[in-house]
Amino acid sequence: MSQKQFVTQIADINDNFTQWYTDVVLKTELVDYGPVKGTMVIRPYGYAIWENIQKDMDRRFKEAGSKNAYFPLLIPMSFFTKEAEHVEGFAPEVAVVTHAGGAKLEEPLAIRPTSETVIGTMYAKWIQSYRDLPVIMNQWCNVMRWEKTTRPFLRTSEFLWQEGHTVHASEEEAMEETIKMLNVYKSFMEETLAIPVFTGRKTEKEKFAGAVATFGLEAMMLDGKSLQVGTSHYLGQNFSKAFDIKFLDKDSALKHGYTTSWGTSTRMIGGIIMAHGDARGLVLPPMVAPIQAIIVPVAAHKGGVIEKCKELETELVKAGIRAETDVRDMSPGWKFNEWEMKGVPIRIELGPRDIENNQAMVMRRDTLEKTAVSLDGFADYIVELTKTVQKDLLEKSRQRRDAKIVEADSLEGILQGVEDKKFVKAGWCGCRECEDKVKEVGQATARVMCDEEGVPERCAICGKKATHKVIFARAY
Amino acid sequence: MSQKQFVTQIADINDNFTQWYTDVVLKTELVDYGPVKGTMVIRPYGYAIWENIQKDMDRRFKEAGSKNAYFPLLIPMSFFTKEAEHVEGFAPEVAVVTHAGGAKLEEPLAIRPTSETVIGTMYAKWIQSYRDLPVIMNQWCNVMRWEKTTRPFLRTSEFLWQEGHTVHASEEEAMEETIKMLNVYKSFMEETLAIPVFTGRKTEKEKFAGAVATFGLEAMMLDGKSLQVGTSHYLGQNFSKAFDIKFLDKDSALKHGYTTSWGTSTRMIGGIIMAHGDARGLVLPPMVAPIQAIIVPVAAHKGGVIEKCKELETELVKAGIRAETDVRDMSPGWKFNEWEMKGVPIRIELGPRDIENNQAMVMRRDTLEKTAVSLDGFADYIVELTKTVQKDLLEKSRQRRDAKIVEADSLEGILQGVEDKKFVKAGWCGCRECEDKVKEVGQATARVMCDEEGVPERCAICGKKATHKVIFARAY
Repeated sequence: MSQKQFVTQIADINDNFTQWYTDVVLKTELVDYGPVKGTMVIRPYGYAIWENIQKDMDRRFKEAGSKNAYFPLLIPMSFFTKEAEHVEGFAPEVAVVTHAGGAKLEEPLAIRPTSETVIGTMYAKWIQSYRDLPVIMNQWCNVMRWEKTTRPFLRTSEFLWQEGHTVHASEEEAMEETIKMLNVYKSFMEETLAIPVFTGRKTEKEKFAGAVATFGLEAMMLDGKSLQVGTSHYLGQNFSKAFDIKFLDKDSALKHGYTTSWGTSTRMIGGIIMAHGDARGLVLPPMVAPIQAIIVPVAAHKGGVIEKCKELETELVKAGIRAETDVRDMSPGWKFNEWEMKGVPIRIELGPRDIENNQAMVMRRDTLEKTAVSLDGFADYIVELTKTVQKDLLEKSRQRRDAKIVEADSLEGILQGVEDKKFVKAGWCGCRECEDKVKEVGQATARVMCDEEGVPERCAICGKKATHKVIFARAY
Repeated sequence: MSQKQFVTQIADINDNFTQWYTDVVLKTELVDYGPVKGTMVIRPYGYAIWENIQKDMDRRFKEAGSKNAYFPLLIPMSFFTKEAEHVEGFAPEVAVVTHAGGAKLEEPLAIRPTSETVIGTMYAKWIQSYRDLPVIMNQWCNVMRWEKTTRPFLRTSEFLWQEGHTVHASEEEAMEETIKMLNVYKSFMEETLAIPVFTGRKTEKEKFAGAVATFGLEAMMLDGKSLQVGTSHYLGQNFSKAFDIKFLDKDSALKHGYTTSWGTSTRMIGGIIMAHGDARGLVLPPMVAPIQAIIVPVAAHKGGVIEKCKELETELVKAGIRAETDVRDMSPGWKFNEWEMKGVPIRIELGPRDIENNQAMVMRRDTLEKTAVSLDGFADYIVELTKTVQKDLLEKSRQRRDAKIVEADSLEGILQGVEDKKFVKAGWCGCRECEDKVKEVGQATARVMCDEEGVPERCAICGKKATHKVIFARAY
């Protein structure tokens, strides 16, 4: 298969970004469609990214004082009705088990769309005294939300995620936790996924069903649209009152706790694809890439080439690099294309002449730069290079994003910015009508509020006094 | 709370083993009952054991050439009917989703009780040529089997597990994989859980629904009953024919693949509890213990004690030990009892006098032996001690088990052995009637066949020619 043929398997990234995305996720074997409409199968290459994400995040959660646990998949339908906003938000998306063990169930059971209700029930049982607080737990699990239009990683009926759930003795402490975890997420997105994010409070319309306040993390994709890659919710006493999470405080008074929840999902993999990819396919940040360096033998049939490649692989693996040698019976050119499409950060080419010259050719996937590198101290070079690539990817994403942010002081300005595939910062009066108008006319939503940048005098939509500064954008 | 009061929270292990088990799992906060009947919540102390199990097993799987993936939770009911034995075995236990997104589904969906059917469907799509084989994948996930009588870890409607699914070009290779993974499990059980296991082929009656042959791992619990802690199935072409998993072989002929599957679950945690526990509660093998060494300050209010404990903790953590200092405002005696109940392998007591003498008191949970240990080279001592405890636990379990194995050459002999809470090895003619008789009269089942030990001349039950040597035991 010629290089040309190979590359044209993927739709043009500038011409049809949506098709490019679908082509990339399927052809790089990250994912496939499951037999049930709206479900996905995460294939080994995609799942390995998820494992790298989990490992890194899990360490951060534990450092932040969280412990993992596991709560049941099935939740009695009646639990949802205990928190009015929550049931309204989730009931339409729930998948319901009505029969089990060959008989009709007395009460239908929901497959968890999120676990506030069942975890709240357990917390109510476990928490007695202020000495039991704070409670900080996380679970890695699958959740189910029946969606009409689905896309792999971005919106599927079942997806994998983590959900943290905490209880605190005071409002201040719970709010502190909400912001702390928002920042844990932000550091992770930037340091590990190399994706810069805007963080901020969501509007009432966009907040989580049942939250007092939702804080979101918004990342700009290559097409200028925003992807919500994580959320952290301050739930106040909404769930503690609905589920009776009470504790005996130091002053001997029985009080309701203050709860938070925070989550991120396999959606982040969609974010990686759409934040870093290019015409050739995936560009994976080294920290999450299943293979960080692929070694391709050139003139592999010549004596000593495969052996030298394997030697190099061992050296790299010892230095902590996820390295592999591609020994398949295919041409180097074919392999170059495949590994470029699969986004492996570093390609190492090694042939008889390289061995003679005590060097290897090293190509960076992100810049496509190719350099001859001495085999003396080679592993150190590659270790450093992974760090450089990681850093450069974040910087490049940040520059690309920052060039696509505009400010607007009129509805027309907002609409023009959105039409230009940009994030638009604008003053907002805080009313639902203005927010809805941007959606109706421009298909854009309020992503987060960034009041700390300074609130403009006027609402860009209605001209009344502004109470917030909002980032408007089209979103996934 | 006095020591006496504390210990009596747990039922007598000799008097009422069942209640002892329930008391231990609940009071050590490994687990709690979920709101839906038959479900469990795995609490942080229990989940940390699962995380240690996963980490260790996952490494072994990857070394054995397996890659992780994730397949959908929901399976169309029609998939089950494609393999006749499979549907018969699992249909009665399935939980069924009939409604989702506010509407009745066209086809009801099963929550996976196991994933052969959905994974087989995907494999059929992915596999074209002999070059695509073998396929070796594993998934860590939740599964659902609606059970009438449930007990935490041992039998719950939902549980966590891993399921490996492989496809091979030949019968030999598939059978090799089945046995290879059986042995990976066996090594894990013995090296990591310190639980000796019998491995062997299951009888037709006891095999997996849809398998050609099932190989099981059977561990003796403290009460002499057997716990099946894992299974590895050779599925032949049963599933490849049902799901059309075909490949173009080297000889250009289109052939059905040969498949295997293998699984272990959170049930293993039940096995740890019932293989090592004692009157005081849990006894955890160091390799899976969430806390390997607990440091308890004595006379903590005295200057320098807490500081020295923390110093020791840092030293131990640096040496790779999961160590914690218990700084709670409770008496040392209270803490001793709690950590004994929770099965922490090593307890370290440190008071002002110990500091003066440059030593600490070290207690082994498994033997309850207490020794004064010099603080010079202390971390090395503890590292070694964890290895010794791990080794001794396996040895102790093996001796205890081997003392409870008898041979029988009559039905009476089998029944007497079972009544004495032993494993009974006996000749068997291979017929279902004889197998059923042991079950009816003695409530014992054929656990595995151990023909390699030499098949006795006669069936112990009917006296006809024996074709197998079987281990009979009562089982969980």
